[in-house]
Amino acid sequence: MKWSELGAERCSVARSVAVIGDRWTLMILRDLFLGIRRFEDFERRLSISRSLIADRLKRLVEEGVVRREPYQDRPPRHEYRLTEKGLALHPVMMAIVHWGDTWCAGEEGPPLLHRHRTCGHDFAPVSVCSECGAPLTARDVEVRPGPGF
Amino acid sequence: MKWSELGAERCSVARSVAVIGDRWTLMILRDLFLGIRRFEDFERRLSISRSLIADRLKRLVEEGVVRREPYQDRPPRHEYRLTEKGLALHPVMMAIVHWGDTWCAGEEGPPLLHRHRTCGHDFAPVSVCSECGAPLTARDVEVRPGPGF
Repeated sequence: MKWSELGAERCSVARSVAVIGDRWTLMILRDLFLGIRRFEDFERRLSISRSLIADRLKRLVEEGVVRREPYQDRPPRHEYRLTEKGLALHPVMMAIVHWGDTWCAGEEGPPLLHRHRTCGHDFAPVSVCSECGAPLTARDVEVRPGPGF
Repeated sequence: MKWSELGAERCSVARSVAVIGDRWTLMILRDLFLGIRRFEDFERRLSISRSLIADRLKRLVEEGVVRREPYQDRPPRHEYRLTEKGLALHPVMMAIVHWGDTWCAGEEGPPLLHRHRTCGHDFAPVSVCSECGAPLTARDVEVRPGPGF
């Protein structure tokens, strides 16, 4: 299978991975969730080539995850913002952060703390069942073919 | 920044992405969560080169996400299983699946349904706050430096 064929697979992991399964794309998404919007700021924070950033942003725009918006006329300048489809990646990013905090942070502890504005506490994300509200574990989940199989 | 430097960043996204932020690694993790354990089965399902699969599995073993276990003596054969650190990626995989189901599945609907054994219902994963139990959204989350900053 080629990388470009992943998006056509009858699998939601493969389809998602075709959009976000790239190291620099994930780092750009991290920055977007932290409020970064301008090309020069991605460049400064990631220290990778302009063409690499431009390529990843272009692809995210094509996929409808990011929208490009003018913020200045003369000279014309654009910034990048998460669309609704992009904001919907928040649980993915939080789960990635939490795994890194738990398994890769070492003795120093997590680099960033996340505070829940609604309740005012530092929190960790917990993945629960939409039907009964119980925390999910791998062993509790059974998979079977759905309508799009 | 080089790819190999990501793991040393003071950021849990960067550290996680250094381990799992690769398209084929994510596809192998999907298969591991679906119960696939043998090299030949990864090969058959992914249709990518043996060296690509061997490289990704080796790296997952080095990172402690997967363990390699003998299942046969003559000839010697090994299978691959998720460690505790690997099983802890379940919320990441479920979040990726759910995003794909919601935003990439089209009119046909999701390719797979997930049933929660505990309550018996088909479910979607919901990311909630560990402290108050409310569903999380990007706008509710405030970030500040932690001990490992």
